[in-house]
Amino acid sequence: MEVRQLYKGRVVDLRLEQVTLPNHVTVTLEMIRHPGAAAVVPLHDDDSVTLVHQYRYAAGGFIWEIPAGKLDGGEDPARCAARELQEEVGLRAEELLPLGTILTAPGFCDERIHLFVARRLTPTAQQLDADEVLSVSRMPLERALRMIRNGEIQDAKTIAGLHHAADFLARAHPR
Amino acid sequence: MEVRQLYKGRVVDLRLEQVTLPNHVTVTLEMIRHPGAAAVVPLHDDDSVTLVHQYRYAAGGFIWEIPAGKLDGGEDPARCAARELQEEVGLRAEELLPLGTILTAPGFCDERIHLFVARRLTPTAQQLDADEVLSVSRMPLERALRMIRNGEIQDAKTIAGLHHAADFLARAHPR
Repeated sequence: MEVRQLYKGRVVDLRLEQVTLPNHVTVTLEMIRHPGAAAVVPLHDDDSVTLVHQYRYAAGGFIWEIPAGKLDGGEDPARCAARELQEEVGLRAEELLPLGTILTAPGFCDERIHLFVARRLTPTAQQLDADEVLSVSRMPLERALRMIRNGEIQDAKTIAGLHHAADFLARAHPR
Repeated sequence: MEVRQLYKGRVVDLRLEQVTLPNHVTVTLEMIRHPGAAAVVPLHDDDSVTLVHQYRYAAGGFIWEIPAGKLDGGEDPARCAARELQEEVGLRAEELLPLGTILTAPGFCDERIHLFVARRLTPTAQQLDADEVLSVSRMPLERALRMIRNGEIQDAKTIAGLHHAADFLARAHPR
Protein backbone atom coordinates (compact mmCIF):
# COMPACT_ATOMS: atom_id res chain seq x y z
CA MET A 1 0.00 0.00 0.00
CA GLU A 2 1.38 3.39 -0.99
CA VAL A 3 0.82 6.36 1.30
CA ARG A 4 1.72 9.96 0.61
CA GLN A 5 1.31 12.59 3.30
CA LEU A 6 -0.25 15.80 1.98
CA TYR A 7 -0.54 17.81 5.18
CA LYS A 8 0.06 17.38 8.88
CA GLY A 9 -1.19 20.11 11.18
CA ARG A 10 -2.41 20.53 14.72
CA VAL A 11 -5.63 18.59 14.08
CA VAL A 12 -5.66 17.33 10.50
CA ASP A 13 -3.36 14.60 9.12
CA LEU A 14 -4.24 14.26 5.42
CA ARG A 15 -2.86 11.47 3.23
CA LEU A 16 -3.31 10.01 -0.23
CA GLU A 17 -3.53 6.24 0.18
CA GLN A 18 -3.52 3.67 -2.60
CA VAL A 19 -5.89 0.92 -1.59
CA THR A 20 -7.00 -2.38 -3.14
CA LEU A 21 -10.68 -2.95 -2.35
CA PRO A 22 -12.20 -6.41 -1.64
CA ASN A 23 -13.43 -6.47 -5.28
CA HIS A 24 -9.76 -6.13 -6.43
CA VAL A 25 -10.28 -2.60 -7.75
CA THR A 26 -7.38 -0.30 -6.80
CA VAL A 27 -8.26 3.27 -5.86
CA THR A 28 -6.45 6.29 -4.44
CA LEU A 29 -8.27 7.71 -1.42
CA GLU A 30 -7.93 11.01 0.37
CA MET A 31 -7.84 9.99 4.01
CA ILE A 32 -7.92 12.10 7.15
CA ARG A 33 -6.13 10.14 9.88
CA HIS A 34 -7.52 11.07 13.30
CA PRO A 35 -6.19 10.06 16.75
CA GLY A 36 -9.71 9.20 17.95
CA ALA A 37 -11.79 10.93 20.59
CA ALA A 38 -13.90 10.36 23.68
CA ALA A 39 -17.31 11.84 24.48
CA VAL A 40 -19.26 11.46 27.69
CA VAL A 41 -22.89 11.82 28.78
CA PRO A 42 -22.93 13.23 32.33
CA LEU A 43 -26.06 11.49 33.67
CA HIS A 44 -27.06 12.69 37.16
CA ASP A 45 -28.91 10.63 39.78
CA ASP A 46 -32.18 12.45 38.93
CA ASP A 47 -31.88 11.39 35.22
CA SER A 48 -30.81 14.87 34.12
CA VAL A 49 -27.82 15.44 31.82
CA THR A 50 -25.24 18.18 31.56
CA LEU A 51 -24.71 19.52 28.03
CA VAL A 52 -22.60 22.33 26.61
CA HIS A 53 -23.80 25.01 24.21
CA GLN A 54 -20.55 25.54 22.34
CA TYR A 55 -19.41 27.91 19.61
CA ARG A 56 -18.33 25.91 16.58
CA TYR A 57 -17.00 27.93 13.69
CA ALA A 58 -17.58 24.98 11.32
CA ALA A 59 -21.26 24.94 12.30
CA GLY A 60 -21.64 28.72 11.91
CA GLY A 61 -22.64 29.31 15.53
CA PHE A 62 -23.44 27.69 18.87
CA ILE A 63 -24.48 24.04 18.97
CA TRP A 64 -25.50 21.61 21.74
CA GLU A 65 -22.96 18.92 22.53
CA ILE A 66 -21.92 16.42 25.16
CA PRO A 67 -18.42 17.02 26.60
CA ALA A 68 -15.80 15.55 24.24
CA GLY A 69 -12.21 15.81 23.16
CA LYS A 70 -9.45 14.23 21.12
CA LEU A 71 -7.32 11.45 22.58
CA ASP A 72 -4.02 12.95 23.57
CA GLY A 73 -1.19 10.81 22.10
CA GLY A 74 -2.55 7.30 22.56
CA GLU A 75 -4.42 8.29 25.72
CA ASP A 76 -6.85 5.77 27.23
CA PRO A 77 -10.37 6.81 26.09
CA ALA A 78 -11.82 6.58 29.63
CA ARG A 79 -9.07 8.85 30.93
CA CYS A 80 -9.77 11.32 28.13
CA ALA A 81 -13.52 11.25 28.92
CA ALA A 82 -12.82 11.91 32.63
CA ARG A 83 -10.50 14.79 31.71
CA GLU A 84 -13.02 16.43 29.37
CA LEU A 85 -15.78 15.97 31.96
CA GLN A 86 -13.71 17.90 34.46
CA GLU A 87 -12.28 20.55 32.13
CA GLU A 88 -15.40 21.32 30.04
CA VAL A 89 -18.24 21.06 32.56
CA GLY A 90 -16.54 20.86 35.98
CA LEU A 91 -17.76 17.41 37.00
CA ARG A 92 -16.05 14.38 38.50
CA ALA A 93 -17.57 10.89 38.11
CA GLU A 94 -17.27 7.95 40.47
CA GLU A 95 -18.37 5.66 37.63
CA LEU A 96 -17.54 5.92 33.93
CA LEU A 97 -19.15 3.19 31.83
CA PRO A 98 -18.45 2.55 28.12
CA LEU A 99 -21.41 2.92 25.70
CA GLY A 100 -19.58 1.70 22.58
CA THR A 101 -17.90 3.60 19.77
CA ILE A 102 -19.09 5.48 16.70
CA LEU A 103 -17.58 6.40 13.34
CA THR A 104 -18.28 10.01 12.38
CA ALA A 105 -17.29 10.25 8.71
CA PRO A 106 -16.09 6.84 7.43
CA GLY A 107 -16.08 8.01 3.81
CA PHE A 108 -12.94 10.10 4.27
CA CYS A 109 -11.84 10.03 7.93
CA ASP A 110 -10.97 7.27 10.41
CA GLU A 111 -12.19 9.16 13.49
CA ARG A 112 -13.67 6.83 16.08
CA ILE A 113 -15.37 8.36 19.13
CA HIS A 114 -15.54 6.30 22.32
CA LEU A 115 -18.80 7.07 24.13
CA PHE A 116 -19.22 6.90 27.89
CA VAL A 117 -21.88 7.56 30.48
CA ALA A 118 -20.67 9.24 33.68
CA ARG A 119 -22.50 8.44 36.93
CA ARG A 120 -22.40 9.56 40.58
CA LEU A 121 -21.29 13.05 39.68
CA THR A 122 -19.86 15.68 41.97
CA PRO A 123 -18.88 19.26 41.12
CA THR A 124 -15.23 20.22 40.68
CA ALA A 125 -13.40 23.12 38.99
CA GLN A 126 -14.00 23.75 35.27
CA GLN A 127 -10.88 24.64 33.22
CA LEU A 128 -11.62 25.97 29.74
CA ASP A 129 -9.02 26.68 27.06
CA ALA A 130 -8.99 30.20 25.60
CA ASP A 131 -10.49 28.87 22.35
CA GLU A 132 -13.40 27.06 24.04
CA VAL A 133 -16.47 29.31 24.08
CA LEU A 134 -19.35 27.55 25.75
CA SER A 135 -21.98 27.59 28.46
CA VAL A 136 -23.06 24.61 30.55
CA SER A 137 -26.70 23.53 30.95
CA ARG A 138 -28.33 20.80 32.98
CA MET A 139 -31.70 19.46 31.82
CA PRO A 140 -33.80 16.29 32.07
CA LEU A 141 -32.60 13.56 29.67
CA GLU A 142 -36.19 13.46 28.32
CA ARG A 143 -35.90 17.11 27.32
CA ALA A 144 -32.57 16.48 25.56
CA LEU A 145 -34.15 13.59 23.62
CA ARG A 146 -36.99 15.95 22.62
CA MET A 147 -34.35 18.43 21.38
CA ILE A 148 -33.01 15.68 19.10
CA ARG A 149 -36.51 15.03 17.74
CA ASN A 150 -37.24 18.73 17.11
CA GLY A 151 -33.84 19.37 15.49
CA GLU A 152 -32.30 21.58 18.21
CA ILE A 153 -29.58 18.97 18.79
CA GLN A 154 -27.80 18.19 15.51
CA ASP A 155 -24.35 17.01 16.58
CA ALA A 156 -23.96 13.35 15.60
CA LYS A 157 -21.93 12.16 18.62
CA THR A 158 -24.42 13.90 20.94
CA ILE A 159 -27.41 12.22 19.26
CA ALA A 160 -25.71 8.82 19.51
CA GLY A 161 -24.52 9.40 23.09
CA LEU A 162 -27.91 10.54 24.41
CA HIS A 163 -29.75 7.62 22.79
CA HIS A 164 -27.19 5.18 24.19
CA ALA A 165 -27.60 6.80 27.63
CA ALA A 166 -31.39 6.41 27.39
CA ASP A 167 -30.90 2.70 26.56
CA PHE A 168 -28.49 2.41 29.50
CA LEU A 169 -31.16 3.85 31.84
CA ALA A 170 -33.86 1.58 30.38
CA ARG A 171 -31.64 -1.45 31.08
CA ALA A 172 -30.82 -0.20 34.58
CA HIS A 173 -34.49 0.43 35.47
CA PRO A 174 -36.65 -1.92 33.34
CA ARG A 175 -40.32 -0.96 33.42
CA MET B 1 -11.05 36.74 7.85
CA GLU B 2 -8.00 35.25 6.22
CA VAL B 3 -8.25 31.93 4.40
CA ARG B 4 -5.45 29.91 2.88
CA GLN B 5 -6.18 26.80 0.86
CA LEU B 6 -3.85 23.92 1.74
CA TYR B 7 -5.26 21.17 -0.46
CA LYS B 8 -8.17 20.65 -2.81
CA GLY B 9 -8.79 17.11 -4.03
CA ARG B 10 -11.66 14.95 -5.19
CA VAL B 11 -13.25 14.83 -1.72
CA VAL B 12 -11.23 16.94 0.69
CA ASP B 13 -10.98 20.74 0.59
CA LEU B 14 -8.62 21.73 3.42
CA ARG B 15 -8.05 25.35 4.48
CA LEU B 16 -6.37 27.34 7.20
CA GLU B 17 -8.87 29.95 8.39
CA GLN B 18 -8.15 32.83 10.75
CA VAL B 19 -11.22 33.26 12.91
CA THR B 20 -12.22 35.65 15.68
CA LEU B 21 -14.29 33.78 18.26
CA PRO B 22 -17.24 35.34 20.17
CA ASN B 23 -14.86 35.88 23.14
CA HIS B 24 -12.65 38.04 20.83
CA VAL B 25 -9.82 35.51 20.81
CA THR B 26 -8.35 35.06 17.33
CA VAL B 27 -7.36 31.54 16.31
CA THR B 28 -6.20 29.79 13.17
CA LEU B 29 -8.27 26.71 12.43
CA GLU B 30 -7.70 23.78 10.08
CA MET B 31 -11.05 23.43 8.33
CA ILE B 32 -12.30 20.76 5.97
CA ARG B 33 -14.92 22.35 3.75
CA HIS B 34 -17.47 19.75 2.62
CA PRO B 35 -20.26 20.15 0.03
CA GLY B 36 -22.78 18.43 2.34
CA ALA B 37 -24.48 15.10 1.91
CA ALA B 38 -27.84 13.34 2.02
CA ALA B 39 -28.69 10.04 3.72
CA VAL B 40 -31.98 8.18 3.56
CA VAL B 41 -33.74 5.53 5.65
CA PRO B 42 -35.69 3.28 3.26
CA LEU B 43 -38.69 2.40 5.48
CA HIS B 44 -40.98 -0.21 3.93
CA ASP B 45 -44.75 -0.55 4.57
CA ASP B 46 -44.08 -3.47 6.96
CA ASP B 47 -41.73 -1.31 9.13
CA SER B 48 -38.61 -3.00 7.76
CA VAL B 49 -35.60 -0.99 6.56
CA THR B 50 -33.05 -1.55 3.81
CA LEU B 51 -29.42 -1.12 4.91
CA VAL B 52 -26.10 -1.62 3.16
CA HIS B 53 -23.14 -3.54 4.53
CA GLN B 54 -20.38 -1.52 2.90
CA TYR B 55 -16.60 -1.79 2.76
CA ARG B 56 -15.05 1.33 4.27
CA TYR B 57 -11.29 1.48 4.17
CA ALA B 58 -11.29 4.17 6.89
CA ALA B 59 -13.22 1.82 9.19
CA GLY B 60 -10.93 -1.13 8.47
CA GLY B 61 -13.71 -3.33 7.04
CA PHE B 62 -17.44 -3.62 6.33
CA ILE B 63 -19.87 -1.45 8.27
CA TRP B 64 -23.67 -1.09 8.31
CA GLU B 65 -25.00 2.14 6.82
CA ILE B 66 -28.08 3.76 5.39
CA PRO B 67 -27.75 4.78 1.71
CA ALA B 68 -25.96 8.13 1.47
CA GLY B 69 -23.86 10.30 -0.77
CA LYS B 70 -22.31 13.73 -1.24
CA LEU B 71 -24.33 16.56 -2.77
CA ASP B 72 -23.21 16.91 -6.35
CA GLY B 73 -22.39 20.61 -6.99
CA GLY B 74 -25.14 22.39 -5.08
CA GLU B 75 -27.59 19.55 -5.70
CA ASP B 76 -30.92 19.62 -3.86
CA PRO B 77 -30.57 17.24 -0.85
CA ALA B 78 -33.87 15.44 -1.61
CA ARG B 79 -32.75 14.82 -5.18
CA CYS B 80 -29.41 13.46 -3.90
CA ALA B 81 -31.24 11.16 -1.44
CA ALA B 82 -33.50 9.83 -4.24
CA ARG B 83 -30.47 9.24 -6.46
CA GLU B 84 -28.52 7.34 -3.76
CA LEU B 85 -31.64 5.31 -2.93
CA GLN B 86 -31.83 4.17 -6.52
CA GLU B 87 -28.10 3.71 -7.20
CA GLU B 88 -27.05 2.08 -3.90
CA VAL B 89 -30.01 -0.15 -3.03
CA GLY B 90 -32.22 -0.15 -6.16
CA LEU B 91 -35.32 1.45 -4.66
CA ARG B 92 -37.62 4.22 -5.80
CA ALA B 93 -39.76 6.16 -3.28
CA GLU B 94 -43.13 7.79 -3.86
CA GLU B 95 -42.58 9.85 -0.70
CA LEU B 96 -39.35 11.33 0.61
CA LEU B 97 -39.75 13.20 3.90
CA PRO B 98 -37.04 15.28 5.63
CA LEU B 99 -35.90 14.16 9.12
CA GLY B 100 -33.62 17.12 9.83
CA THR B 101 -29.87 17.52 9.46
CA ILE B 102 -26.82 16.44 11.45
CA LEU B 103 -23.25 17.68 11.85
CA THR B 104 -20.73 14.85 11.72
CA ALA B 105 -17.46 16.43 12.92
CA PRO B 106 -18.01 20.09 13.83
CA GLY B 107 -14.55 20.38 15.42
CA PHE B 108 -12.77 20.41 12.07
CA CYS B 109 -15.28 19.87 9.25
CA ASP B 110 -18.45 21.66 8.11
CA GLU B 111 -20.14 18.53 6.72
CA ARG B 112 -23.91 18.63 7.19
CA ILE B 113 -25.91 15.53 6.32
CA HIS B 114 -29.56 15.96 5.36
CA LEU B 115 -31.56 12.96 6.62
CA PHE B 116 -34.68 11.62 4.92
CA VAL B 117 -37.13 8.78 5.32
CA ALA B 118 -38.26 7.14 2.07
CA ARG B 119 -41.78 5.65 1.96
CA ARG B 120 -43.91 3.66 -0.50
CA LEU B 121 -40.90 1.94 -2.01
CA THR B 122 -40.77 -0.04 -5.24
CA PRO B 123 -37.79 -1.93 -6.69
CA THR B 124 -35.78 -0.49 -9.54
CA ALA B 125 -32.29 -1.12 -10.97
CA GLN B 126 -29.26 -0.71 -8.66
CA GLN B 127 -26.22 1.02 -10.22
CA LEU B 128 -23.04 0.74 -8.17
CA ASP B 129 -19.77 2.52 -8.92
CA ALA B 130 -16.66 0.33 -9.30
CA ASP B 131 -15.37 1.57 -5.90
CA GLU B 132 -18.60 0.77 -4.02
CA VAL B 133 -18.31 -2.66 -2.41
CA LEU B 134 -21.51 -3.49 -0.56
CA SER B 135 -24.38 -5.87 -0.05
CA VAL B 136 -27.99 -4.88 0.60
CA SER B 137 -30.05 -6.24 3.54
CA ARG B 138 -33.64 -5.73 4.56
CA MET B 139 -34.55 -6.21 8.22
CA PRO B 140 -37.17 -5.06 10.75
CA LEU B 141 -36.50 -1.54 12.05
CA GLU B 142 -36.63 -3.03 15.57
CA ARG B 143 -33.72 -5.32 14.69
CA ALA B 144 -31.69 -2.39 13.32
CA LEU B 145 -32.32 -0.45 16.55
CA ARG B 146 -31.10 -3.50 18.49
CA MET B 147 -27.94 -3.51 16.35
CA ILE B 148 -27.32 0.09 17.49
CA ARG B 149 -27.73 -0.95 21.13
CA ASN B 150 -25.39 -3.94 20.82
CA GLY B 151 -22.74 -2.00 18.90
CA GLU B 152 -23.09 -3.72 15.48
CA ILE B 153 -24.15 -0.40 13.94
CA GLN B 154 -21.52 2.28 14.64
CA ASP B 155 -21.93 4.75 11.79
CA ALA B 156 -23.11 8.08 13.24
CA LYS B 157 -25.47 9.13 10.40
CA THR B 158 -27.04 5.65 10.46
CA ILE B 159 -27.62 5.82 14.23
CA ALA B 160 -29.20 9.27 13.90
CA GLY B 161 -31.24 8.31 10.81
CA LEU B 162 -32.68 5.11 12.32
CA HIS B 163 -33.63 6.84 15.59
CA HIS B 164 -35.29 9.67 13.64
CA ALA B 165 -37.14 7.09 11.52
CA ALA B 166 -38.36 5.33 14.70
CA ASP B 167 -39.67 8.70 15.99
CA PHE B 168 -41.32 9.31 12.61
CA LEU B 169 -43.15 5.96 12.89
CA ALA B 170 -44.13 6.64 16.52
CA ARG B 171 -45.68 9.96 15.40
CA ALA B 172 -47.41 8.32 12.42
CA HIS B 173 -48.88 5.50 14.55
CA PRO B 174 -49.23 6.77 18.12
CA ARG B 175 -49.93 4.00 20.62
